Amino acid sequence: MSLLAKNNLELTSSNLTKNVEFESVHIAYDRIKGQIKETPVITSNLLNEILGHEIYFKLENFQKTGSFKVRGALNTLISLKEKNQLPEEIVAYSSGNHGQAVAWAAKQFNIKTTIYIPKFVSQVKQNAINSYGANLINTDTRKEAEIAATAHAGRGAYFIHPSSHENSITGYATASYEVFKSGLIPDAIFTPCGGGGLTIGTYLAAQEQKQAISVYAVEPANANDAAISYRTGKIFAFEDSPITIADGARTLKITEKNFHYLKKISGFIEISEEDIAYWTVWVMHLLKIICEPTAALSLAGAVKWLREQSCKKKVLAIISGGNVDPQMHRNLWLEDYINRMPSLY
Amino acid sequence: MSLLAKNNLELTSSNLTKNVEFESVHIAYDRIKGQIKETPVITSNLLNEILGHEIYFKLENFQKTGSFKVRGALNTLISLKEKNQLPEEIVAYSSGNHGQAVAWAAKQFNIKTTIYIPKFVSQVKQNAINSYGANLINTDTRKEAEIAATAHAGRGAYFIHPSSHENSITGYATASYEVFKSGLIPDAIFTPCGGGGLTIGTYLAAQEQKQAISVYAVEPANANDAAISYRTGKIFAFEDSPITIADGARTLKITEKNFHYLKKISGFIEISEEDIAYWTVWVMHLLKIICEPTAALSLAGAVKWLREQSCKKKVLAIISGGNVDPQMHRNLWLEDYINRMPSLY
Repeated sequence: MSLLAKNNLELTSSNLTKNVEFESVHIAYDRIKGQIKETPVITSNLLNEILGHEIYFKLENFQKTGSFKVRGALNTLISLKEKNQLPEEIVAYSSGNHGQAVAWAAKQFNIKTTIYIPKFVSQVKQNAINSYGANLINTDTRKEAEIAATAHAGRGAYFIHPSSHENSITGYATASYEVFKSGLIPDAIFTPCGGGGLTIGTYLAAQEQKQAISVYAVEPANANDAAISYRTGKIFAFEDSPITIADGARTLKITEKNFHYLKKISGFIEISEEDIAYWTVWVMHLLKIICEPTAALSLAGAVKWLREQSCKKKVLAIISGGNVDPQMHRNLWLEDYINRMPSLY
Repeated sequence: MSLLAKNNLELTSSNLTKNVEFESVHIAYDRIKGQIKETPVITSNLLNEILGHEIYFKLENFQKTGSFKVRGALNTLISLKEKNQLPEEIVAYSSGNHGQAVAWAAKQFNIKTTIYIPKFVSQVKQNAINSYGANLINTDTRKEAEIAATAHAGRGAYFIHPSSHENSITGYATASYEVFKSGLIPDAIFTPCGGGGLTIGTYLAAQEQKQAISVYAVEPANANDAAISYRTGKIFAFEDSPITIADGARTLKITEKNFHYLKKISGFIEISEEDIAYWTVWVMHLLKIICEPTAALSLAGAVKWLREQSCKKKVLAIISGGNVDPQMHRNLWLEDYINRMPSLY
């Protein structure tokens, strides 16, 4: 907990002003609670027994549109509505889940929406975006999607960044807020990290609790731009989308604003591709839920962290989404990971 | 509803005596409720919109040991305990889920247990049985498992039939009982049918309600022994385990006792292998849960039935289990069923 204590001190001095840009999480929660699902928190007795710790899962795969992202998009749009500033047009780029969330939220307000999406994103996610009535434009690369969306925003559309929009981040924070509200206060929370939005939201929610709660970001070792940035103190950028089965974490680089907050969290954990696949399959097997590889990062990170703990811990892994396409399933189930039991060592 | 009304009449006359062997479902519920999960009931707005009906899912994939079977095994053992008749040894044969349920329930009472299981049953299910401490004996065929278990029972062990034990059936009935208790009274319930235990349990629970509720059994067209028996009025038996991806429905034949009750239900629906796979994948995609092909039979049957309805219906599909092994996943996700949307026609 010492890291977090240090962060708390920092927060009360030099960085306080920066934190003010975020509203209190309960405001976002009150705003969106009627339109999102209060997703369940579950645990696996078998896994707890094997690992000797208490591991809880917040199941955002059951959230509307199949991921936590909708909490952010909805909080952003309702906030704008409260200020009578609902835009006539919305634009976003996405590796999939953010696009679905924005398309769905915009549909609730009948706002014209365009989503730029690299063509490598799963057809299932693209179909879902289409089904919410958004205009979907394919690009060759992630970078092209970013450039096109930014240009589109320059022509007057309201831009919702996939991981760095203040109100979206406060929206993401409501996932952990729900957990705390239910009375569960973990020692540490593990979040998948792409652009860092969920991690920062989780950090903000944890900061509002009286108890010290560590927050960790978990990245694929193949897509570790934020971990490198955290380690070196300087934002690292990939030129092209890194190759990882955790397709929600294929971000090129984090924003300056997100970096400011990501520096404060308790740490980054990097996971190999094999371990991401292994834990994805085990989450599905143990919990009987569909789990994206990106979402399984959080359990993979938690287990890696738990291996270094000397006493029993209570941790929360956020299962960020459950949008898996057939090709991904085929890849995941190629190996018989199920016949290799998890262990703490 | 006319079919059911007819059945009610029958029940009050000649068949009443036969029905007495079953306890009232609430007795079983009160007996086991502290040790099982009250599983959730969910719906998919998208599916309801597409089909124009209200379809609810009872999620027994989240039940302990991953299927509804544990309700029966537990009710059987607690009943015996109440009568001070807990056996020293238990024996069962199983295509997997019943074996897991019996092994788990027996472990709660520290009773020595042997499960005979054909070697073709998934390794994941066999591993689970082992992990509950039961003695697992592999046989070449289902028939050999039945013969060996029966012989073993002859040597003094207490035998729990996989689908035809009275207290187990009343235990299975508690799944629907929970649904009714929550206030949801569907027009019809669809159950996968192997040996018929879940179907009969569901029928018993429905009979105890004031409202008329139709109960349907859904079988693979490839493993339709009970449907043939229902149609012809004479029990039909397969020589060898029929080939179907719905591995929980590979029963050779139903018992005389089960046939007596299965005759009373509203009907049988048979599903092709392709449709079983299609709906398994769609249940996973829509609900973000792991669903056995056997469990998806219930939705497949419901959709087939809904196609013939002239007005809007409210139906319940029991998702009986979620134990899927890697090989099954690989087979299921070979086809891109997800890109072919469901339709009512």
